[in-house]
Amino acid sequence: MWLRNAWYVAAWSDEVAAERITARTIINQPLVLYRKADGVAVVLEDRCCHRLAPLSMGRLERDDLRCMYHGLKFAPDGRCIEIPGQAVIPPTAVVRTYPVAERGSWIWVWMGEAEQADPALIPASIAATDPDWRLQKGWLDYDANYQLINDNLLDLSHLSYAHENTLGRNAPQWANERPRISRLDRGLRFQRWLRGMPARHYHKARGDTFDLWHSYDFLVPGIFIQRPAWYPAGTGDRMQLQPPAEAPFFVRLDDQAVTPISERTSRYFYAVGARSADASAAIVEEMFAFTETAFHEDKSIIEAQQQVIDLDPARRMLLLSADGGPTQFRRLVQQLIERESADTRRPAVAAQAD
Amino acid sequence: MWLRNAWYVAAWSDEVAAERITARTIINQPLVLYRKADGVAVVLEDRCCHRLAPLSMGRLERDDLRCMYHGLKFAPDGRCIEIPGQAVIPPTAVVRTYPVAERGSWIWVWMGEAEQADPALIPASIAATDPDWRLQKGWLDYDANYQLINDNLLDLSHLSYAHENTLGRNAPQWANERPRISRLDRGLRFQRWLRGMPARHYHKARGDTFDLWHSYDFLVPGIFIQRPAWYPAGTGDRMQLQPPAEAPFFVRLDDQAVTPISERTSRYFYAVGARSADASAAIVEEMFAFTETAFHEDKSIIEAQQQVIDLDPARRMLLLSADGGPTQFRRLVQQLIERESADTRRPAVAAQAD
Amino acid sequence: MWLRNAWYVAAWSDEVAAERITARTIINQPLVLYRKADGVAVVLEDRCCHRLAPLSMGRLERDDLRCMYHGLKFAPDGRCIEIPGQAVIPPTAVVRTYPVAERGSWIWVWMGEAEQADPALIPASIAATDPDWRLQKGWLDYDANYQLINDNLLDLSHLSYAHENTLGRNAPQWANERPRISRLDRGLRFQRWLRGMPARHYHKARGDTFDLWHSYDFLVPGIFIQRPAWYPAGTGDRMQLQPPAEAPFFVRLDDQAVTPISERTSRYFYAVGARSADASAAIVEEMFAFTETAFHEDKSIIEAQQQVIDLDPARRMLLLSADGGPTQFRRLVQQLIERESADTRRPAVAAQAD
Repeated sequence: MWLRNAWYVAAWSDEVAAERITARTIINQPLVLYRKADGVAVVLEDRCCHRLAPLSMGRLERDDLRCMYHGLKFAPDGRCIEIPGQAVIPPTAVVRTYPVAERGSWIWVWMGEAEQADPALIPASIAATDPDWRLQKGWLDYDANYQLINDNLLDLSHLSYAHENTLGRNAPQWANERPRISRLDRGLRFQRWLRGMPARHYHKARGDTFDLWHSYDFLVPGIFIQRPAWYPAGTGDRMQLQPPAEAPFFVRLDDQAVTPISERTSRYFYAVGARSADASAAIVEEMFAFTETAFHEDKSIIEAQQQVIDLDPARRMLLLSADGGPTQFRRLVQQLIERESADTRRPAVAAQAD
Repeated sequence: MWLRNAWYVAAWSDEVAAERITARTIINQPLVLYRKADGVAVVLEDRCCHRLAPLSMGRLERDDLRCMYHGLKFAPDGRCIEIPGQAVIPPTAVVRTYPVAERGSWIWVWMGEAEQADPALIPASIAATDPDWRLQKGWLDYDANYQLINDNLLDLSHLSYAHENTLGRNAPQWANERPRISRLDRGLRFQRWLRGMPARHYHKARGDTFDLWHSYDFLVPGIFIQRPAWYPAGTGDRMQLQPPAEAPFFVRLDDQAVTPISERTSRYFYAVGARSADASAAIVEEMFAFTETAFHEDKSIIEAQQQVIDLDPARRMLLLSADGGPTQFRRLVQQLIERESADTRRPAVAAQAD
Repeated sequence: MWLRNAWYVAAWSDEVAAERITARTIINQPLVLYRKADGVAVVLEDRCCHRLAPLSMGRLERDDLRCMYHGLKFAPDGRCIEIPGQAVIPPTAVVRTYPVAERGSWIWVWMGEAEQADPALIPASIAATDPDWRLQKGWLDYDANYQLINDNLLDLSHLSYAHENTLGRNAPQWANERPRISRLDRGLRFQRWLRGMPARHYHKARGDTFDLWHSYDFLVPGIFIQRPAWYPAGTGDRMQLQPPAEAPFFVRLDDQAVTPISERTSRYFYAVGARSADASAAIVEEMFAFTETAFHEDKSIIEAQQQVIDLDPARRMLLLSADGGPTQFRRLVQQLIERESADTRRPAVAAQAD
């Protein structure tokens, strides 16, 4: 069971180039992405209505996409507008079209009922072109269910162990301090002070340790928006562990999206950066490489976890005090799925098309 | 559900060499092929009756085949004739033997009830040794169900698109003209004039365009016998689009066989050629290479189509005016399968053996 | 359905080195093996009770094992003894621990109910360090169900055919002579004279042929303990084919263990050797290499057999006079499994943990 009524990240904007066709699969649905001549992104079902060949093997003809098996041509609204050798085009000759939006540097696709696709629900991420920020971006694929990756991002206590040589080096605070978790409309907010954190070399001039105001939102279906803020050691206590009332000397950026491909595969998009005023390009480069190393540590343990789970899928996890985030978020997603399936009991075009 | 009472192409004749053992799987049944000392081909079940090891890993002992796991020896009629260390051979120690025939340059195997194996049902293909014809032959394997390959061959409108750079180059006629389809005893016949077709360089002396009398039979289980005939431009109209009453200046040969291996794998055998009088060896060589390129275009799109289908196997195809051939042929195969399963309600040795 | 109440070989003793963590899967259960500081081997479930990550990706901290996903630490008895950031450890925070014993050169694991784990049930194999014997050891993995490997070892008539170029060269006796089979408590004993066997070069001084007193035990779950004994030609007849009352001039050693990993994968451990007094290191080296070649012959035919079986899993084997061993042993294992599942109808901790 998938959550359909949600904006999923399908691609980095620059992955979908002019005059190019890109294939993606999200929640087991084949999608084809391209741009019209005016640059606006189009997302269609990647499955010709005729013999179910992928349109992504087709040919872009200005704003239209032609299936290169038998030549059917489709407009950006999904209607078939040409069938070679056949004058009459049946009204059922359509492929599904998906609501699409470009925000931040991502192309977002709404996988559910089109009439519910409200762009206001798209989480606010930073564009790669934003002059206030300097960032680098990448992605990697997991052989694991997306929920295991979400769980990972919803409980950062693992930094002290899974990343003991990278992001969590000499920082047991990640495991020992529990965040305050508050409920957002379609997600959760995590906030805490992590005091006395070890400084990386480019912050040593500020002292050997610092206090981190660690704050992030995690939003449906799996969007991680983090803005950790660096303060001089002692600030956390001075603030009485309440949200900071002062300006930090450094703010990091982590925008990430977990997109389910199938039950056992997922794509993980990520941007790493900092405020342009705080970090040179070289520092952001270093932060990015360091963080990517950590992401491969996550991938190793999560893919292994998936394999262990598959040996005995009925085995239950034992929830601990650190699991508030994962547990609340899984429940939220489950509620949204249930609400959605209640809604789709009334007939709807989008529901039929799946 | 497979059609069993049909002649399937198991191999090119020269693939089954003297004193060699060849393994094949057809409709999920493991087969072992070899030749007796007199050259006659034998096809047995490739599964020793004892512990189900493949006989194709065995040893040929003149006309007999010995399993090289525990040494049981089988005669060409499938009877076990030796069990090491055991004097009495139980009557149930047999492997299934399959009716086999060598016609054209193919070894044909009847996968159903032996008593119904009528060699008169074998489609007439041209032997590689026929002095009237010059041909080359090959095969390739598909990761796709055989029906998708049959569909492809039953609707050549795809030539204008899937093969826009090869077989269908500058020839929208393939997509725009519908063939007349007539019913044969175990198949369909396709006929049409394709007028004003672009000439290949070796026909330019006859004019820049020509009229093609395009005619082929497609026979159960997936045998494609095509003899396209070249006429001077204008002939089609002069014949009032009826079958030609004159001799063509060039006749091409395409003999192909689609053999299901399993639900998701198939082998595709093909010969390409022309009348010896019409084409030099160099021209046939060029035709073959050109056509093989096109076959890889088919393989790409059909394997991709299979993958899209597997994402949602319940999704229905939308049938168009070009789909008369595929639709009628799928119906014919379905009828034959149903008739067969009605027949096999009465007990039969061959049916038990599956 | 697996037999659980049995000692399975998990590893050669020297595979589990000090300060190293070894992962194994037996009957689909993930295991982690390590040694405490005192050298005693520990086997735990390789699945953290928290989020089911493998403990084998964790860190050994003296005698304890820490999960390196979120930092839970487990004692050798399976109890969680530390949860970072959480003061109270719930009593359900445990991983299963398995009874383990080191005998011969193998680490044996009891996969069933701990209270029934009687070390007296461990078959007697020879340790690599035993001064009376000289041996070499190895293992290989099969893509096949363990029962097919057991069947192979329970009917050595296949030596004359599957190993016609190695172990069974010029020795039709393996196929032609049936052993006497007697029932042991948890296995079968095979005994026979094989007369007139061809001598290998290092025995030629004793004559061109010899009589072999061929004797081995095959024990639950798949332990092969063989001690073939060489006698001068004529001894078998002189003994009237009864067990020998004289000392052999050469005794070979074959200790083997078949360990099911999953339904379709198995690990095969083996030692090959001879009495130290009978064979130089060079001869044992040669015997080992020769025998390993034969083991790859078995692997080829058995993996092919598995593939043929998978094409039609309902197909029955035809049992012959040589099949007494395989048939009786399969029945014995089946009886033990049934007895076990009858036993486990009463609640038990170990049964719940699977």
